[in-house]
Amino acid sequence: MDLSAIVSEIAEAMQSETDRGAVATYIPELGAVDPDQFGLAIWQPDGEVFAAGDADTPFSIQSISKVFTLTLAMREMGESLWHRVGIEPSGNPFNSIVQLEAEHGKPRNPLINAGAIIVADCLAAGRSAGEAQAAVTGFVQRAAGDASIAINPAVARSELLTGQRNRALAHFMSAEGNLRNPVEKVLEIYFAQCALSLTCRQLALAGRYLAMEGQVNDDVLTPPHRVRQILALMLTCGHYDGSGAFAYRVGIPGKSGVGGGILAIVPGRASIAVWSPGLGPNGNSLLGTRAMELLAARTGWSVFAP
Amino acid sequence: MDLSAIVSEIAEAMQSETDRGAVATYIPELGAVDPDQFGLAIWQPDGEVFAAGDADTPFSIQSISKVFTLTLAMREMGESLWHRVGIEPSGNPFNSIVQLEAEHGKPRNPLINAGAIIVADCLAAGRSAGEAQAAVTGFVQRAAGDASIAINPAVARSELLTGQRNRALAHFMSAEGNLRNPVEKVLEIYFAQCALSLTCRQLALAGRYLAMEGQVNDDVLTPPHRVRQILALMLTCGHYDGSGAFAYRVGIPGKSGVGGGILAIVPGRASIAVWSPGLGPNGNSLLGTRAMELLAARTGWSVFAP
Amino acid sequence: MDLSAIVSEIAEAMQSETDRGAVATYIPELGAVDPDQFGLAIWQPDGEVFAAGDADTPFSIQSISKVFTLTLAMREMGESLWHRVGIEPSGNPFNSIVQLEAEHGKPRNPLINAGAIIVADCLAAGRSAGEAQAAVTGFVQRAAGDASIAINPAVARSELLTGQRNRALAHFMSAEGNLRNPVEKVLEIYFAQCALSLTCRQLALAGRYLAMEGQVNDDVLTPPHRVRQILALMLTCGHYDGSGAFAYRVGIPGKSGVGGGILAIVPGRASIAVWSPGLGPNGNSLLGTRAMELLAARTGWSVFAP
Amino acid sequence: MDLSAIVSEIAEAMQSETDRGAVATYIPELGAVDPDQFGLAIWQPDGEVFAAGDADTPFSIQSISKVFTLTLAMREMGESLWHRVGIEPSGNPFNSIVQLEAEHGKPRNPLINAGAIIVADCLAAGRSAGEAQAAVTGFVQRAAGDASIAINPAVARSELLTGQRNRALAHFMSAEGNLRNPVEKVLEIYFAQCALSLTCRQLALAGRYLAMEGQVNDDVLTPPHRVRQILALMLTCGHYDGSGAFAYRVGIPGKSGVGGGILAIVPGRASIAVWSPGLGPNGNSLLGTRAMELLAARTGWSVFAP
Repeated sequence: MDLSAIVSEIAEAMQSETDRGAVATYIPELGAVDPDQFGLAIWQPDGEVFAAGDADTPFSIQSISKVFTLTLAMREMGESLWHRVGIEPSGNPFNSIVQLEAEHGKPRNPLINAGAIIVADCLAAGRSAGEAQAAVTGFVQRAAGDASIAINPAVARSELLTGQRNRALAHFMSAEGNLRNPVEKVLEIYFAQCALSLTCRQLALAGRYLAMEGQVNDDVLTPPHRVRQILALMLTCGHYDGSGAFAYRVGIPGKSGVGGGILAIVPGRASIAVWSPGLGPNGNSLLGTRAMELLAARTGWSVFAP
Repeated sequence: MDLSAIVSEIAEAMQSETDRGAVATYIPELGAVDPDQFGLAIWQPDGEVFAAGDADTPFSIQSISKVFTLTLAMREMGESLWHRVGIEPSGNPFNSIVQLEAEHGKPRNPLINAGAIIVADCLAAGRSAGEAQAAVTGFVQRAAGDASIAINPAVARSELLTGQRNRALAHFMSAEGNLRNPVEKVLEIYFAQCALSLTCRQLALAGRYLAMEGQVNDDVLTPPHRVRQILALMLTCGHYDGSGAFAYRVGIPGKSGVGGGILAIVPGRASIAVWSPGLGPNGNSLLGTRAMELLAARTGWSVFAP
Repeated sequence: MDLSAIVSEIAEAMQSETDRGAVATYIPELGAVDPDQFGLAIWQPDGEVFAAGDADTPFSIQSISKVFTLTLAMREMGESLWHRVGIEPSGNPFNSIVQLEAEHGKPRNPLINAGAIIVADCLAAGRSAGEAQAAVTGFVQRAAGDASIAINPAVARSELLTGQRNRALAHFMSAEGNLRNPVEKVLEIYFAQCALSLTCRQLALAGRYLAMEGQVNDDVLTPPHRVRQILALMLTCGHYDGSGAFAYRVGIPGKSGVGGGILAIVPGRASIAVWSPGLGPNGNSLLGTRAMELLAARTGWSVFAP
Repeated sequence: MDLSAIVSEIAEAMQSETDRGAVATYIPELGAVDPDQFGLAIWQPDGEVFAAGDADTPFSIQSISKVFTLTLAMREMGESLWHRVGIEPSGNPFNSIVQLEAEHGKPRNPLINAGAIIVADCLAAGRSAGEAQAAVTGFVQRAAGDASIAINPAVARSELLTGQRNRALAHFMSAEGNLRNPVEKVLEIYFAQCALSLTCRQLALAGRYLAMEGQVNDDVLTPPHRVRQILALMLTCGHYDGSGAFAYRVGIPGKSGVGGGILAIVPGRASIAVWSPGLGPNGNSLLGTRAMELLAARTGWSVFAP
């Protein structure tokens, strides 16, 4: 299998696509991103990275950060985390607030906004907002082996100003007693993690530990059974109400972000980062998803293959 | 790995469990089943079957039949099936009718009742109710290599008499134009498939094609890419609102039935049938689920392992 | 107050309206009705009837019949009726099946479809379907003092053939144990009552007892306190999810039907029937509602006036 | 009719009731109220007030204040208010956030919390929080003819500290663009109005304008047609998900508050204030509701009577 050729082919095929979805516009920093961009990077256990397109352009990873904060929170809290957040797909186009009310302030899973806010609240225990942000950034830097990775402060600030819906979620969970820290402190951490800025190449490196049972070279970031659990959550909940379709069409655990990025993991084989800013109807990168379908078809990669 | 020992150990551990869940009671035939039973059978590609406990006692496979009818319908309709039923987890404790209304009569996936009724409606096209039942039974017999497998007519009749909620679902979908055949004809097929009676051993054999890319010996039951799609649906939707938890704790695609059975598939490695009649809060076999957790822990089997 | 002039004026004003709403089309008999028609009839306690427009053209009263069957059922069951149906507005654009599920098969009130099906089920106790239909027709004839009032059999048959959504509701309530008679028997009664065919003049006469504390001349159809309760239900629940707006803009208890009719009652003063086939977004007659607003403004009639 | 005797009798009957409901406990100031209290005051157009029980003990009027702020906002905005809030009963035990999401941040009516927050936002236009509070208090003082009426600052402060659920509602509506002023400014106004402290006697006087077509002596507080509209909203929406039952059993427009008070209006005849701190399942005063039923039965008062 010539992965280098496959990667180039896919990037080329995506370049000529005309239906590229719609860029998120709820903050100016995301709305201003050029929709014609497409990047792809695949890291393999031998250390090689195959990249194509705009694989070295940084973008806002947004909800992909939920995978990293989840890893951290599971390390700190273990199974007790699930007293405060569920592990079931939300599976509902009428999304989160409805379910949050029906289930008394316990979000369905840690990969939707409400759940990730609870995870941020866990990371805020015994830490200032700044310390929690530093812990998250530090973890991503360590995973990627790249100390230059940083939060984009303009994006973080913009989110903090406009994130009324997330603020509503947080206040609602606070009313139900499921938020322990002050709402604004937690949101500061949450918005900061969403504003982490990485290139596809950096993101593929940051995902290595998920492809390698938790270990990068000699550094154990999390034990093997936790990695399996995180991958299970990514497969069932990683693409909002498009999670089933991604599992059906791609067959690889992934997590998307509203910035247009997707991190996908083939256990033991690859950590994949793809990025294209235009989104489809469920808020997942349109070309990113299509590229992942092509890649799965060309490589045969699937957790459902023998 | 001594699978024979593992299987015996698990059966023994389950025998001593005191919290066995509650047997389904909506029809007398299910309510009368002895809750103390537990069976486990694992088929492996070399043909060997490891079995323990009540692995040779027949039980009503109920919703597990949805996997077999789905296989048939995908073969006959291909991707056009998804115009009439979705591929997303239902993820909602307020279950199906609510979503059916919000989504105008299109069920969320083919492994919940409403979706399986649509699948039955597809199988009813160009067939009488009797012919459709014969097609389903024939497929399961062929998959298991066992012509003795049959529908329990008392169970089928009981369901037909009491299945008012499924009848409501069917009429609702009919009102929305998503059911093509008469409601009673479709329900006759649907209730018959649910009444298929198999032992764990038979069920593990019937699941072989899903572990072997669609092929049993020289018989191609469905192409490899369809198997991956079916396994994806089983992983994301196979345990109702406990699907996420099963993926998280077990990490293997499975489908449960209200009769207490679970069929689970490790691609390339094993077809597993487990049965214990008592159900947990989400309608999945309580000991069956626990046994699968133990099995996954002891064997290391997981689609999320390298 | 010159009611004769007011009635003529309103009919004239309505004739020139161009936005007339959309005629219901779910059965051919309703879809074929000429949308340009408008009728108005007002009965007053001195016996005089003021009528204008197409006040002598018969139309399908549909859900207005729910007021008459409710009167009958309350007479037979008293307060025990409320064990099986609620007395709260449904207040939900995602209408009835959702709430029916959330509230375990107990409809919100007797003036929505699900609730009226329960009322029909009550009338079916100890009666054949034919006897129940005769009881309903007989009651309306007696209330209107007109033995010529009858069910339109073509409409009843059409509803029976196409009413899959009501059938779904009935099966769902049957599954929850809230329907005592066979679904098809109850639906036969329900669809027959909906197919009652009256003119505005006949309907205004049929509503007299509600304006006169239950009594027409010397005939006591129901006691005074029941009339007040029925009027309260009409005011809070009589126009589906437009009930609040009707109370706000018109201020008079009313019940609408999908055939375009509205029966409205001013206690002690008037029984009003208005009809125009075109419906607004909530399924209430568009011009009928507008005419009622004009009438209330011109007469000062309102239950909220001193 | 000897109203003096009726009032005493009801107060006496209520005194001996043992099932008194549960006092609201979400803030300490409400939780500390003695549940054994009961007060009743009826004002009649001739100026006489009949009172009994604890009619001169001040209590927190809470949601009853929504009637007064609605009157003010309708005076300032007229029908344009309905672009931002609906006029339909919420009719949903799964209350407000669900509907708020389904209806994109537009509350169902101005008498539920979300709707009253929008009303407070309207009053905040061109006013500081302090000025808006002064406008509300001033209106109630003027309506009651009693300049001593004031906000209880301890209650207002407590609400501001604990009102996370209302804060969630406000942020959600802000996210949907339906809130114009800063969330905290609007909540300050809203919590202050809820903390208005009145006796039954004062409240009955404050409600006079609603019984008298908007006018108290020579002072026109609002035009007659607005009063009818406000009474319509009180009848259909004034008791949350118990509004239908109150209309059915009492038949008089009313508004309840979580402090245990109810203001009820018989057009042209009476302004009634009743208070007992214990609440029933829908959050309405248990004995207050029972007292209103007795009063309606004894006086024959009902908007549905001729």
